[in-house]
Amino acid sequence: MRRVYLENKEYQGARSEFVAQLEQLGALEPLAGKLMPIRDSLGMVTAEAVVSKSSVPHYHASAMDGIAVRAEDTYQARETNPVVLTLDEDAVEVDTGDPLPSQFNAVIMVEEVQFIDNGKVEIIAAASPWQHVRAIGEDMIKGEVIIPSNHTLTAPDLGAVIAGGIKDIEVRRQPKVAVIPTGSELVPPGETPARGEIVEFNSTMLGGLFTQWGALVTTFPIIKDKYELIRDAMAKAVSENDIVIVNAGSSAGREDFTAAALAELGNVVTHGVAIKPGKPVILGYIDKTPVIGVPGYPVSAALTAKLFVYPLVRALRGQGTAEGERVKALLSRSLHSTLGMEEFVRVRLGQVGEKLIAAPLGRGAGVITSLVKADGMLVLDRLSEGRLAGETIMVELFRDQAEIRRTLMISGSHDMTLDIIDSIMRERYLGYSVASAHVGSLGGLVGLRDVEAHCAGTHLLDPASGEYNITYVKQHLQDKALLVHLTYREQGLMVAPGNPKGIKNLRSLAQEDIVFINRQKGSGTRVLLDFRLKEEGIDPRQIQGYRREEYTHLSAAAAVANGAADAALGIRAAAKALGLDFVPVDRERYDICIPRQLMDTPLIAKMLEIIRSEEFRRRAKALGGYDASNSGSIIWLPGEEDQDA
Amino acid sequence: MRRVYLENKEYQGARSEFVAQLEQLGALEPLAGKLMPIRDSLGMVTAEAVVSKSSVPHYHASAMDGIAVRAEDTYQARETNPVVLTLDEDAVEVDTGDPLPSQFNAVIMVEEVQFIDNGKVEIIAAASPWQHVRAIGEDMIKGEVIIPSNHTLTAPDLGAVIAGGIKDIEVRRQPKVAVIPTGSELVPPGETPARGEIVEFNSTMLGGLFTQWGALVTTFPIIKDKYELIRDAMAKAVSENDIVIVNAGSSAGREDFTAAALAELGNVVTHGVAIKPGKPVILGYIDKTPVIGVPGYPVSAALTAKLFVYPLVRALRGQGTAEGERVKALLSRSLHSTLGMEEFVRVRLGQVGEKLIAAPLGRGAGVITSLVKADGMLVLDRLSEGRLAGETIMVELFRDQAEIRRTLMISGSHDMTLDIIDSIMRERYLGYSVASAHVGSLGGLVGLRDVEAHCAGTHLLDPASGEYNITYVKQHLQDKALLVHLTYREQGLMVAPGNPKGIKNLRSLAQEDIVFINRQKGSGTRVLLDFRLKEEGIDPRQIQGYRREEYTHLSAAAAVANGAADAALGIRAAAKALGLDFVPVDRERYDICIPRQLMDTPLIAKMLEIIRSEEFRRRAKALGGYDASNSGSIIWLPGEEDQDA
Repeated sequence: MRRVYLENKEYQGARSEFVAQLEQLGALEPLAGKLMPIRDSLGMVTAEAVVSKSSVPHYHASAMDGIAVRAEDTYQARETNPVVLTLDEDAVEVDTGDPLPSQFNAVIMVEEVQFIDNGKVEIIAAASPWQHVRAIGEDMIKGEVIIPSNHTLTAPDLGAVIAGGIKDIEVRRQPKVAVIPTGSELVPPGETPARGEIVEFNSTMLGGLFTQWGALVTTFPIIKDKYELIRDAMAKAVSENDIVIVNAGSSAGREDFTAAALAELGNVVTHGVAIKPGKPVILGYIDKTPVIGVPGYPVSAALTAKLFVYPLVRALRGQGTAEGERVKALLSRSLHSTLGMEEFVRVRLGQVGEKLIAAPLGRGAGVITSLVKADGMLVLDRLSEGRLAGETIMVELFRDQAEIRRTLMISGSHDMTLDIIDSIMRERYLGYSVASAHVGSLGGLVGLRDVEAHCAGTHLLDPASGEYNITYVKQHLQDKALLVHLTYREQGLMVAPGNPKGIKNLRSLAQEDIVFINRQKGSGTRVLLDFRLKEEGIDPRQIQGYRREEYTHLSAAAAVANGAADAALGIRAAAKALGLDFVPVDRERYDICIPRQLMDTPLIAKMLEIIRSEEFRRRAKALGGYDASNSGSIIWLPGEEDQDA
Repeated sequence: MRRVYLENKEYQGARSEFVAQLEQLGALEPLAGKLMPIRDSLGMVTAEAVVSKSSVPHYHASAMDGIAVRAEDTYQARETNPVVLTLDEDAVEVDTGDPLPSQFNAVIMVEEVQFIDNGKVEIIAAASPWQHVRAIGEDMIKGEVIIPSNHTLTAPDLGAVIAGGIKDIEVRRQPKVAVIPTGSELVPPGETPARGEIVEFNSTMLGGLFTQWGALVTTFPIIKDKYELIRDAMAKAVSENDIVIVNAGSSAGREDFTAAALAELGNVVTHGVAIKPGKPVILGYIDKTPVIGVPGYPVSAALTAKLFVYPLVRALRGQGTAEGERVKALLSRSLHSTLGMEEFVRVRLGQVGEKLIAAPLGRGAGVITSLVKADGMLVLDRLSEGRLAGETIMVELFRDQAEIRRTLMISGSHDMTLDIIDSIMRERYLGYSVASAHVGSLGGLVGLRDVEAHCAGTHLLDPASGEYNITYVKQHLQDKALLVHLTYREQGLMVAPGNPKGIKNLRSLAQEDIVFINRQKGSGTRVLLDFRLKEEGIDPRQIQGYRREEYTHLSAAAAVANGAADAALGIRAAAKALGLDFVPVDRERYDICIPRQLMDTPLIAKMLEIIRSEEFRRRAKALGGYDASNSGSIIWLPGEEDQDA
């Protein structure tokens, strides 16, 4: 067994060391310029300053529609003493941009001219010399620098360059970046992978990033995990490109050849950086070409590309280092981190009142959907052991703030109809969307106290009254929130197709051959389970797997579908989605709790409109096990029962 | 003479009315989808939700390099009680991503495994069931929505879609936008315009903007100012495009046919909006195609495109309205505005200490270079008469904040060597640049008191002592700033080539046939002039044009070059740049005043390094009239002369 022991270099140091070595090699000099038509150079970077070939305007031009005059002829004009000028003698009609005839030195706007008969005009105010005239060179003077070097060209820049009489300019060649996907387990996009195979998608993601950064990307075909094949592909890529990315084979597995091949052809500067995710990154070069081995997990791949490849692309383009836009946000739940590792955590963001709330997404390096959902990223310092819920943290933004302000943050319990609200929201109100953070029913209500979401889904049974939700809202939010009904739904045991273990009811869970998987504490499903177990006198300790927790209905269902458990309590729709059988246990009410102070905000208004629509009810019903026929009705308003009483 | 009287509709109302009419026509429905390979769809917008075709992972996979085991076999393992497992019986080696053999249910990381002889391994800690296993569906579950509809695709999105087993997706067709440049005065880019002609560059600028916004742009050849030609081009464009832009012919000139042609073919909703610049914009439609007549001045064209076309492009793409990122900034000088008009002012921005300073750029609608230089834009409300220097205002950003933080803000007096500092800064320190705001020497010193720039250029003669700058710095900044020398330079009278009026010295300015143009009050050149006039006993009232003011050496020189004046006082380099003759008057010292608290900041350090370089001195000398041989030396440190005394 080949075993590679990775380094664990501190991140900033590793990055600086790599950049310094490349600079010493001259590998980070901005690329040479090439002549390109200005029309095609949007987003390109100038390789030299662009100097105007002519002044703009290049003649004295009228700045208005009106008449050109000699200012001296108008000095006596007053409302009480109009001056009459003869057209084509004392004055001449001009439009904006027309040359000022040389005998004139001012323009009077057409609105201030009275046209009278016989080609005469009357004016009632004096014109000052050069008024409404664009003098030669007002915009730019021949020989002046229009655009400096190392400047990324915008649309107005293109216009200015053409105005300056220039058609072609020197822009830096775009960096050529090669992406080499490696791995015997990979199959090309569109093919159906067998067990043990996965579809190769990292190269498309990485290629997309590099393209956005201004590089020209070449993607190699998938290379099998053979030392010679990887080495030869690397050699070929280096000969044709400015930067080479090998993905992956960078870890400590038995078939990770990237570092060894790089060491044979060139130099490995670093193998292993104290970042999470992304630790097994390889930083090196062959001759003067940087070669980076990015890890195979998609989140690691995207992050290490951003941290180590982006600065190189920018340097070769002649651009300075980039810093993403950073904003302050409140952390929605505590995050622990590993001392000694720089950890990068993706978050969803929502603007709730004055607060920007950051809800951490799944931290698994393999979970590409966490990149898809992310609005931003925070960094847990290597000297920190984590950050607490409610702490102010800095978040680097991935989306613009306007979009974030149009995101409805629903916390609390997970329900599949929340995804329907999201879909309808996006279809009806362009730019708006729903972000749901699954913290359980109780967690959601507690979070609303500090206004950490716009609303929270809840299905909490009060064992004393048999009533749902109201007791809990009163207890945690007093008169500060109200309850709107969303849907009734069936809860039951999700079991394998055909119910091979013959599970009949909750009592079956106590059987020795049955492995259960539970939901997290504070979730409505957990409260329901505990209530019913107590009612039926079943001791939780008899249930195998009672302490294993999942956070959503779908993930609990997935655990059953993939054999990690024989049963889980969840909603019928989750069972249906994964093709599981369903043993009904109860029908429960799922409501949405909304802080009173947010009731009249546009986001809540949009949500209410959606959940009261026929479309919502129809789509909820189609999920199976849902009864949303009263969705949107007010369940409880604080103060109401006092009146009833 | 055809005269069109423009409307003057309030901006928000005009925009809402236009959008409402288009919505009623169904002209703003998101465009239909078409099937496209996911690989090519970066930046496209989804026309429908993308649903996963398979779960990811689609088998239980090892999440680590290590060994797969049965958790039950390891429960007894302790440091004091190692458990020995036989490979290929009780355990099997796995790499990250390998399928978990069905008899196993946990993975132990390779780092925690001791390989001993005879195919045996030793472990010293218990594994919990399913540890380091990526269970089926951990990332996404078959049938789950991966990407919602109306979503702009990012690089990670592409990866996620491929991971979900999908190769082609439905993305919205890109809006087709036609740009029709009109005007008999226009010549194509690259041609040399005769007097009265201008190079057509707006279509390139507008096309660049529309491309950035995600449209497919077709640019028509230049159409002459003939009613039928414009009408026919418009009809053709409408039949082939989703949005049609006519530039310009939208004003009240004699050859402005756009509105009339639009009225014949379709409907004019609005002609004239109370915005500055951009008032003569035309909003209308033909059948269901929006047609916008954008004014001819480039700044007006860019602004009206942003205000009225951008929302349409976004709607057709299925994106919500966009808001640019807005930040708070301090206004560097007062701005007056026209009551009843919404005025859009471009600004340069600089971060000075904690403050973001916004320095307004030229407001002329014809000045495209103001768009090139702009870092952002502020809006003067139609109900406001302006904003005062030092007021906090909101600025919409055009560049990212990191770039703005790397901008050295030099205020005070204009000097051409400041452009050299900028060039060297951009070449040596990628991403760094210089912004100079020309407020005159005195204005610069006063502004430093409130730290409204990083430093200020000054050449103020003290008539009492004959000394430059020190007296003024002491008076305005006491011990809070120091002076660094930049250059000596020749001041003199800039006159037409060959000096046709025989100007010999300042006394010549009092001649009746000589028209002078002055610099603004508070500028060092003005102070010098007034000092020398007094010295020579010349009454300013004798000088024609004494009250006409220009703000920079180059603009004063341009006034002489284009015949608006016979003479101006300025530096030799400005005269040389415009091919003028030069009559020397004096040699003056130009220094840079730097607040002490900023002395150790990276921006000032970079500037000092540059002005002390041989390259700077050489390039300054090449301008003509400069002596920068001591550039960078400290002229005055507060407290120093107290010690001398």
